[in-house]
Amino acid sequence: MSERPTLAEVFSRAEYRLSGHGPRNADVLKAVLEQVDGNMESDMYGKGKVIEDFQEEMAAYLGKEAAVFFPSGTMAQQIALRIHCDEKKLAQVAYHPLCHLEIHEEDGLKELHGIRPILLADRHRLITLEDVTGLGEEIACLLLELPQREIGGQLPEFRELEAIAAYCREKGIKLHLDGARLFEILPYYGKTAAEVCALFDSVYVSFYKSIGGIAGAILAGDAGFAEQSKVWKRRHGGDLISLYPYILTSAHYFKERIGRMDRYYREALALSEQFQACRGVTTRPAVPVSNLFHVHFDAPKDKVETLLIALCEETGIGVTGSLRDFDGETSYFELSVGDGYALVPEERRNDMFRSLDGKLSGIL
Amino acid sequence: MSERPTLAEVFSRAEYRLSGHGPRNADVLKAVLEQVDGNMESDMYGKGKVIEDFQEEMAAYLGKEAAVFFPSGTMAQQIALRIHCDEKKLAQVAYHPLCHLEIHEEDGLKELHGIRPILLADRHRLITLEDVTGLGEEIACLLLELPQREIGGQLPEFRELEAIAAYCREKGIKLHLDGARLFEILPYYGKTAAEVCALFDSVYVSFYKSIGGIAGAILAGDAGFAEQSKVWKRRHGGDLISLYPYILTSAHYFKERIGRMDRYYREALALSEQFQACRGVTTRPAVPVSNLFHVHFDAPKDKVETLLIALCEETGIGVTGSLRDFDGETSYFELSVGDGYALVPEERRNDMFRSLDGKLSGIL
Repeated sequence: MSERPTLAEVFSRAEYRLSGHGPRNADVLKAVLEQVDGNMESDMYGKGKVIEDFQEEMAAYLGKEAAVFFPSGTMAQQIALRIHCDEKKLAQVAYHPLCHLEIHEEDGLKELHGIRPILLADRHRLITLEDVTGLGEEIACLLLELPQREIGGQLPEFRELEAIAAYCREKGIKLHLDGARLFEILPYYGKTAAEVCALFDSVYVSFYKSIGGIAGAILAGDAGFAEQSKVWKRRHGGDLISLYPYILTSAHYFKERIGRMDRYYREALALSEQFQACRGVTTRPAVPVSNLFHVHFDAPKDKVETLLIALCEETGIGVTGSLRDFDGETSYFELSVGDGYALVPEERRNDMFRSLDGKLSGIL
Repeated sequence: MSERPTLAEVFSRAEYRLSGHGPRNADVLKAVLEQVDGNMESDMYGKGKVIEDFQEEMAAYLGKEAAVFFPSGTMAQQIALRIHCDEKKLAQVAYHPLCHLEIHEEDGLKELHGIRPILLADRHRLITLEDVTGLGEEIACLLLELPQREIGGQLPEFRELEAIAAYCREKGIKLHLDGARLFEILPYYGKTAAEVCALFDSVYVSFYKSIGGIAGAILAGDAGFAEQSKVWKRRHGGDLISLYPYILTSAHYFKERIGRMDRYYREALALSEQFQACRGVTTRPAVPVSNLFHVHFDAPKDKVETLLIALCEETGIGVTGSLRDFDGETSYFELSVGDGYALVPEERRNDMFRSLDGKLSGIL
């Protein structure tokens, strides 16, 4: 039994993968470096052409006065909230219970910044205008994550977003965008990044989700906010002497993939339909609003895991490398469409879904 | 006048440079990547072969139970002090007034961790055993920087270091080593890294000083300390999904240059003699104890800067790219011997020193 491969192993060895851009290996960096002049000077502690050019490019793209490159979103977002809290002299913010800061950062916001978060909405739905207007306590800042990753990448309608933003502006509440997957929702909203960001005082975007870079983030806002964020970046230990490996790859893959977000989104729509045609499978959202969605199985994790390993070994197509328990009786995984999807021959994909449907019928 | 090149510009364009390993450009990364298998998997949030192998290698080299790779020393050292303070339930430490944490980190230790530093000794000399035993207040941790960079890379005698360590152990004070330039002092002490580190509870070393990497640091200590440091790394936003560009270059250049530290040290000894043979020039220390020393001119910054620009343009040898005012009437620069020194033909170097001596005679 101990020699049986895991789902992660069969997925990583699969001939095709429905999600992602392919392996996270050194080729991701090598391919970019090969096109870079060896004499290109490093950035130096946040200064120099390589970092300043990209910051200017992203500020313009996001429609903000200034943008600052960070090694991580964890660092960028804690700092954004700290600046907003300091300005209001109020160490209290609000965000979703499944916010990255709440579940993935070892409580950095509380331990390093002494900021108290109020959790809005619940673990199964989005924050609504009513959640915000109904807040009994004062907050310096509201953080919205678009799309809300941990519930399948759901999105409020743009009109509701505008109403929340208007309410916050009226009440003097700063609005921060966790835009880890901002690029991915622009096709659904039919808006430019700048049009979405105009609703927010500060914005974080990531370059290693659908952009497919190595690591790195941009934090954007007005000029004073950006300057303050550089001081906090130094304090956090993120003002590295050289960030260029991340900057070069972010800039390269941004240029390469930003135009593909619409395709990924349409492919996700088609893919979620194929999953939902299988017995005992639903997707969340039922109709995706980005390239990301969750696939839920009406069967427990251990049974589905065995099934998915067999499916991958039989068809050569990996659907996921990581299945999670949902409620003890059902299970799910997250799927993000990237470059890998289009590589799968249609016939092979259809065969795989037929096989999946058959196998599920056997365990349901 | 505005078209006159700066000292930094003529230094960066010089045919030869007395200090450093050469330009900080993309070739530093490209040269390493060319030797890396493109299929090499990325580290993933602190896990994976590429990061674990290097951490184990460095733990063994430093003689500590465990080592953790960090993007920066700023992050690693704040975290080390925080862990020691939490353990002692006392948010007070001691270090030198020119400690990196005091002058280069925008007060991150105070602003993020609420830790109060007591400044020992003064801006012109090393911390002594008497400074430590004479401390009127309780501290959780004492930080020693070896060598003390900002005063020319001075070092206490090893016997004094042992006495300080013994006193701290007796008093329950944790001892942390800022070893940004630890590798560089081993030839003078005639000790292994592990022998020096044995005096300390925790140790930070850097890979972009004489090792010549791109960025990155190791923090080492006992296993419990290392595990706690990983939690704080996540909180700081330093637990990046991929740190391999820094790890690969750190590991590569460590292997390439660790054996050259003795040579750099001996070259620094010779070089400081040549400087001191020039009129109005002294070095600090008078006899270097590592590859680093400060060169002081008995003339103000503006005059010496003009002189050094002319010297560089005339001889093709850059002595420094950055001259600093010392006390209004005299000036100095920091020199770190690296690979560049050995490239300078001896005759050219001797000619340069003759010219420097002559030029100084003209302004003194």
